[in-house]
Amino acid sequence: MIRHSVILKLKKTISEAEKQAFFEAVDTLADIPDVQKFEVLNQISPKNRFEYGISMEFDSQIQYDVYSNHSVHVDFIQNFWIPNVEDFLEIDYTHFI
Amino acid sequence: MIRHSVILKLKKTISEAEKQAFFEAVDTLADIPDVQKFEVLNQISPKNRFEYGISMEFDSQIQYDVYSNHSVHVDFIQNFWIPNVEDFLEIDYTHFI
Repeated sequence: MIRHSVILKLKKTISEAEKQAFFEAVDTLADIPDVQKFEVLNQISPKNRFEYGISMEFDSQIQYDVYSNHSVHVDFIQNFWIPNVEDFLEIDYTHFI
Repeated sequence: MIRHSVILKLKKTISEAEKQAFFEAVDTLADIPDVQKFEVLNQISPKNRFEYGISMEFDSQIQYDVYSNHSVHVDFIQNFWIPNVEDFLEIDYTHFI
């Protein structure tokens, strides 16, 4: 199991419509093959600067790589992530051994 | 639902025995009342500086507060967290509305 997640902060300058379009585009990532336990979350701790989280799981690194290179993901990064996201941090977990 | 998590990096100077004692102490947190879905994880993304993750869920903010103030948690912070942890980031999630 690999749990891929990202915490992010959106640009202050984007409109409500752009924000809505961004999260609609986020939801399309859930349809990429082998994406499991897809979640969009609010980040509520005052101890960091991020506003939202996205989390998903893959059974293997190969599935994760297929996701990363999938056209839906690549297009999302280009058309929605880069224009809208001010700051982010990627976190990937595996079970503790 | 509140998913409380922390990503962390241990001090390079600690011994294997200290590291083992640290994670044994981490596991005792799971026994604090109302802690659900307790997980200890390896952080494997090369895109951040952290090595491990700890994640748990509470049904309510009140349960989260009880956990934070519980003597097992307070003692853990004093006796294991502060002496062993070099850097960390707390992340708390709720469901996206």
